[in-house]
Amino acid sequence: VLGSLTFIGLGLNDEKDITIKGLEAVRECETVFAEFYTSFLSGTTIERIENVIGRKITLLSRQEVENENRILDMAVNGKVAFLTAGDPMTATTHVSLRIAATKRGIPVHIIHNASIVSAASGALGLQNYKFGRTLSLAFQSDNFKPVSAYEGLSENLGLGLHTLILLDLKPEEGRFMTANEGIQLLLDFEKKLGKHIFLEGTLVCALGRIGSESQVVRAGKVSDMLNLEFGAPPHSLVVPGKLHFMEEEALNVFTGLR
Amino acid sequence: VLGSLTFIGLGLNDEKDITIKGLEAVRECETVFAEFYTSFLSGTTIERIENVIGRKITLLSRQEVENENRILDMAVNGKVAFLTAGDPMTATTHVSLRIAATKRGIPVHIIHNASIVSAASGALGLQNYKFGRTLSLAFQSDNFKPVSAYEGLSENLGLGLHTLILLDLKPEEGRFMTANEGIQLLLDFEKKLGKHIFLEGTLVCALGRIGSESQVVRAGKVSDMLNLEFGAPPHSLVVPGKLHFMEEEALNVFTGLR
Repeated sequence: VLGSLTFIGLGLNDEKDITIKGLEAVRECETVFAEFYTSFLSGTTIERIENVIGRKITLLSRQEVENENRILDMAVNGKVAFLTAGDPMTATTHVSLRIAATKRGIPVHIIHNASIVSAASGALGLQNYKFGRTLSLAFQSDNFKPVSAYEGLSENLGLGLHTLILLDLKPEEGRFMTANEGIQLLLDFEKKLGKHIFLEGTLVCALGRIGSESQVVRAGKVSDMLNLEFGAPPHSLVVPGKLHFMEEEALNVFTGLR
Repeated sequence: VLGSLTFIGLGLNDEKDITIKGLEAVRECETVFAEFYTSFLSGTTIERIENVIGRKITLLSRQEVENENRILDMAVNGKVAFLTAGDPMTATTHVSLRIAATKRGIPVHIIHNASIVSAASGALGLQNYKFGRTLSLAFQSDNFKPVSAYEGLSENLGLGLHTLILLDLKPEEGRFMTANEGIQLLLDFEKKLGKHIFLEGTLVCALGRIGSESQVVRAGKVSDMLNLEFGAPPHSLVVPGKLHFMEEEALNVFTGLR
């Protein structure tokens, strides 16, 4: 094996969120792959990323990433970069690719970056260590109606913890779940499962385009937030648990909550 | 108010972990403060950071940051950058500073970066969404013996979740808790409180210098890990909960666990 595989996180929003280390690493690579279906950068385009890194990017589909062979075959003999939004190791599929590369004896490097997983708490002024596990809310369909996010929320709230809820995306279809859709889904689960944890008066926070100039953080009652407009994706939700007085003040000051 | 306050995260390890956006932002500032007591960069020096950013850095003590006035007074009339290791909003004291700045009408910008909070899971190949809340293990003294980390660990394990445990540091005194000291502390708590959650045979992971060339990730039984050497700080610990088979494979492949 003469090659290598370098996972490079592009951070939260645009082509300037790459680190100097990431930039230097990608410039040493002969082949540059990227995927933007597990997460994407709303503030830029492939062309603008290519201009900053000085390399052509080959965009891979979900199938091509999951198949793994195209990437690994290149990385056996050449230096390959794999670009992803956020941190490159928060998606399961990237971990799987890293395992496969390591098993084939390919040296793997990881260049971490900001992820919504760590940035969301700070954007709202909530304490990171008071968050329970992160949940994901999936688009529902006739034969796919997972309620795990609602169950997980109930668990976190029972412990007094805050919850970050990531919202589903299907960039191939141009579909990005909005904060409003997420809130409505949680209300639907509440109606169906009735744990009395997500009601019209429950406090919920919506985040939009974190890390961008147009970033939005709002907090309010479910009934008010349901119909607010948060702009372009990506969105996410935070349901606060027990608030420390400094956290209450942070929500007041940063989100205009009264 | 003519000035502004820009919080800039420096990421995990060295002077090249700053983002292009962070670099451009700091170069537009007249005054550059930094603090390295809540977290620090083990792979660099102030001088090397100054060389990359092209600005002199004024290093602030804990007292100077907590007092806030020195920073805020400068930010009323001039462009001020505040540099921190990791993500700039994971420490409570930075949130407090941001609240105070906003209340004084000072425009605040945040440039996020990688944090151990999001990087630890990926470095081990564990799934981020299976982590319960992050805990901190503090140095114990005669009149300060907090057991909250042990209680929190018990809570997370009860839910089958993984736990990231951040280890205390007192850079002013050159003290950084090692993974070994952390494991010993948890064993001491186990002896005292006896919940049978952290025993000689319990699986524990140690992380050292994540994001650096010399990064270490190891996993093994408590009794074996207690005496291994993980090198220079910073260290942290992860106690896995229920492992998915892909997570078991990741630990095998990445940490040499058998």
